[in-house]
Amino acid sequence: MSDRVIEIFDSTLRDGAQGEDISFSLEDKIKVAMALDKMGVSYIEAGNPGSNPKDMEFFKKMKEVKLKNSKLAAFGATRRFRTKVEEDTNIKSLLAAETDVIVIFGKAWDFQVKEILKTTLEENLSMIKDSISYIKSKNKEVIFDAEHFFDGYKENSDYALKVLITAKEAGADVVVLCDTNGGTLPSEVSEIAKEAVNTVGGRVGIHCHNDIGMAVANSITAVEAGACHIQGTFIGVGERCGNANLTVIIPTLQLKMGYEALPKEKIVELTKTAKYIAEISNIKLLDSMPYVGASAFAHKGGMHIDAICKKSNSYEHIKPEEVGNDRRFLISEVSGKSTILKEIQKVFPNITRDSEEVGKITNRLKELEYEGYKFEGAEGTVELLIRKTIGKYKPFFELKHFKTIGEQPWNTKEFTSTALINVIVDGKNKMTAAEGDGPVNALDKALREALECFYPQLREVRLVDYKVRVLDSESATGAKVRVLIESTDGIENWSTVGVSRDVVQASLIALVDSIEYKLLKDIEKKLKTYF
Amino acid sequence: MSDRVIEIFDSTLRDGAQGEDISFSLEDKIKVAMALDKMGVSYIEAGNPGSNPKDMEFFKKMKEVKLKNSKLAAFGATRRFRTKVEEDTNIKSLLAAETDVIVIFGKAWDFQVKEILKTTLEENLSMIKDSISYIKSKNKEVIFDAEHFFDGYKENSDYALKVLITAKEAGADVVVLCDTNGGTLPSEVSEIAKEAVNTVGGRVGIHCHNDIGMAVANSITAVEAGACHIQGTFIGVGERCGNANLTVIIPTLQLKMGYEALPKEKIVELTKTAKYIAEISNIKLLDSMPYVGASAFAHKGGMHIDAICKKSNSYEHIKPEEVGNDRRFLISEVSGKSTILKEIQKVFPNITRDSEEVGKITNRLKELEYEGYKFEGAEGTVELLIRKTIGKYKPFFELKHFKTIGEQPWNTKEFTSTALINVIVDGKNKMTAAEGDGPVNALDKALREALECFYPQLREVRLVDYKVRVLDSESATGAKVRVLIESTDGIENWSTVGVSRDVVQASLIALVDSIEYKLLKDIEKKLKTYF
Repeated sequence: MSDRVIEIFDSTLRDGAQGEDISFSLEDKIKVAMALDKMGVSYIEAGNPGSNPKDMEFFKKMKEVKLKNSKLAAFGATRRFRTKVEEDTNIKSLLAAETDVIVIFGKAWDFQVKEILKTTLEENLSMIKDSISYIKSKNKEVIFDAEHFFDGYKENSDYALKVLITAKEAGADVVVLCDTNGGTLPSEVSEIAKEAVNTVGGRVGIHCHNDIGMAVANSITAVEAGACHIQGTFIGVGERCGNANLTVIIPTLQLKMGYEALPKEKIVELTKTAKYIAEISNIKLLDSMPYVGASAFAHKGGMHIDAICKKSNSYEHIKPEEVGNDRRFLISEVSGKSTILKEIQKVFPNITRDSEEVGKITNRLKELEYEGYKFEGAEGTVELLIRKTIGKYKPFFELKHFKTIGEQPWNTKEFTSTALINVIVDGKNKMTAAEGDGPVNALDKALREALECFYPQLREVRLVDYKVRVLDSESATGAKVRVLIESTDGIENWSTVGVSRDVVQASLIALVDSIEYKLLKDIEKKLKTYF
Repeated sequence: MSDRVIEIFDSTLRDGAQGEDISFSLEDKIKVAMALDKMGVSYIEAGNPGSNPKDMEFFKKMKEVKLKNSKLAAFGATRRFRTKVEEDTNIKSLLAAETDVIVIFGKAWDFQVKEILKTTLEENLSMIKDSISYIKSKNKEVIFDAEHFFDGYKENSDYALKVLITAKEAGADVVVLCDTNGGTLPSEVSEIAKEAVNTVGGRVGIHCHNDIGMAVANSITAVEAGACHIQGTFIGVGERCGNANLTVIIPTLQLKMGYEALPKEKIVELTKTAKYIAEISNIKLLDSMPYVGASAFAHKGGMHIDAICKKSNSYEHIKPEEVGNDRRFLISEVSGKSTILKEIQKVFPNITRDSEEVGKITNRLKELEYEGYKFEGAEGTVELLIRKTIGKYKPFFELKHFKTIGEQPWNTKEFTSTALINVIVDGKNKMTAAEGDGPVNALDKALREALECFYPQLREVRLVDYKVRVLDSESATGAKVRVLIESTDGIENWSTVGVSRDVVQASLIALVDSIEYKLLKDIEKKLKTYF
């Protein structure tokens, strides 16, 4: 391995899942793993099969899913003390996960061995030795996490280093220095990591937590001290103050320090991927997040904006496009306009920057944004808006009226939702009713059933994603909600958005847009085949 | 000044106000200044009177307000080129602010001088010299911000250092090394800051931005290199990715490095003050913020919680109370028996670790989590679950049946939601109906109205937060949803959670829990007053 290559080890699905408000469904975990594999991280640590049945289920599932670029890793403790390693239940479930890579953690802080494990320093060493050599005998790649290495080193450097040596001699492929409590300073990491690298040699890794805001700095410092393997989470989620944020570390290594952490061509996908993983984790990606945040290249000061227009590097440390992010000028519409113009020209290529339609649409979009709309990843709604505003749009159907009924009959906990809907197409009237899981699902079914008689191609259409965001949580159940749905006809996917104080209405707005967009695209295809 | 004392320079009201979504009213600015003064920061930089009339108004106002511990500073540029300093409008307004301290910034990067200022390197030096010596002649303390110092040093170290020397010789009391673009690595800061300190001597300061997540690390590194003055913002707000976060830097200096940055007794007020300033800035203090965030000492992993109970320093780098924060144990599928036991013992102190109830409740919680429940921050539902599972629970009301009707009448876009509900309390039956923003809001109103006749104290209760999370988005509108609501009676807040395929039913479950929890608490209070 070239000494300019750094292994990126992502633990979003294991250590990241320890973060408050983070809980991944099985589907979520698979999506995250696929996204990380696409980015080309070296390792994906996906769970602790010994401690958590849901994780074991995930590893089973992953046998059907083929990862192209990343190695999957299972995480677990050394054998318990006074237990034979081959009989240790945790070691068994680690092997049962059938991953190529297994991460074993052991204690490197004598205080922890005595006070928490309540065993002897010698026994702790053999627990590490036995576990690693046993798992190596099963032809696995073994990564050893030396828990509390830095705290341990500060109190008993001999023992902390002995732990590393033991792991190395037992066959560990990588030994990882963990700042488990996240309280170590970069200057300490620099000195201690150098010592560790000199002592064990080979591949040394770093695992940092952010309890004093140093996780990123400490990871980079360890690399400067000779580490070649960085553990963290893609957007920095994790227990307490989080883990080292890989989205921040990777571009710094790659764009500023000349290391290769990911395939070069993947760096431009950092922003998109960070947003996607935040979405799946159901957290808002921090606007101020370095490199990928919405504000990372947003300029407010007038002086700064003037300077940027002359030379971007006057107030930007890199070009935003290098990481797939955008520059924004907060006090001028200029930035907004040119983006919107791009969208318009997709539909009406002849419209130019200064034609009045651009202003008209810009204002309309801004109005809607003020109401709570967000058009990022809702290209369906945006195109319809452009067509409707420019007035070259003929609706495919008219929604005359509808009704939803939710009911929990006497003395049951059975809740049923029904919807009635009435649409008109080319003067023909159609009324349908449907039952569903909740009012939205019922409306969805009723609306499709009504329209399919006129537009049979809608039978191919189904929703693949449905997200609800409460905008002003403070107004409680009366709050505004934004509904984002993603639809597919098996060939293409498109997204539409609706906003209302009423989740049912917001959903219906997005549903109607989704269907209109599909019908629109079909006509365009037809036209193309004629001319 | 002892070499263990670090001057804290807060720029929340100046550089912080450049942050996206940050805008302070005059009253806000005064509140923030008072809070910072109370904490005993050395300097409060409060605005740029030359560029912003609102700032000038603030400085006028501040003449009536007496600061006890901090010095107020006004910020502005050097004189413009080819202008006499005494005639420069910006310098005039700086003096008009009548602060004891004036911060002058000038360019330290030759590229910026030529390309942005469009003047000669020599003229830039005299602009700095003239401005500083003129302001010194008015008996002001002068702090010189060397803008882009690190970028400048990397391209032309001689010139960057010459800028510092010029400022120093002109009488600047402090020269500040600015990483204006925020792209400098700690290892670079260490080397360059040492060089600067050796060159100019005296009081050297550091001003960092967080564009590569290094603002805190770089500030601490500069101190290790000899700086004695740190500029930042109290909770890290600022343009792009923000400024150096003083709430993170201060306790690290004080609790880990043996420096005095604030009066010792103020450190315990960090969390409170950070929350207060976030409140005034109208932003949510990040849960994961080091030291002061709500999650900074929140533990989820079962193993970790067991260890913490034995020795807190096993997974905490400091004691939360040192910075006025609290430890929290989060209930989750990965949390062990001891977390759940703690919750149980809050309700039933006599139940011990090995009593069968603990197992019963643990299993029940895990079942529900498997269905999609998440109990972090839903203590209301958790307590009810414990009581219901242990079977010492008498419900306060029975929900007999209900119905919701959503309707969009003919040819309108007016969508109305109505709810009918029927409850029984002590055999008495009550039916109510209500209209609302959507089916959930309507049910909420109807349920309260029905129960208020029996439990008038419910009139004090209102919802303060309502969150919806779609669990398996793939099932689209038929997906499972988790609803988390937070309620208050004006004195206490509590949270409850509900899960269902139907957003209406999920919300109702959480609503019912919320009301039952309130009624339960009231009875407990009553009992306490009797015995």
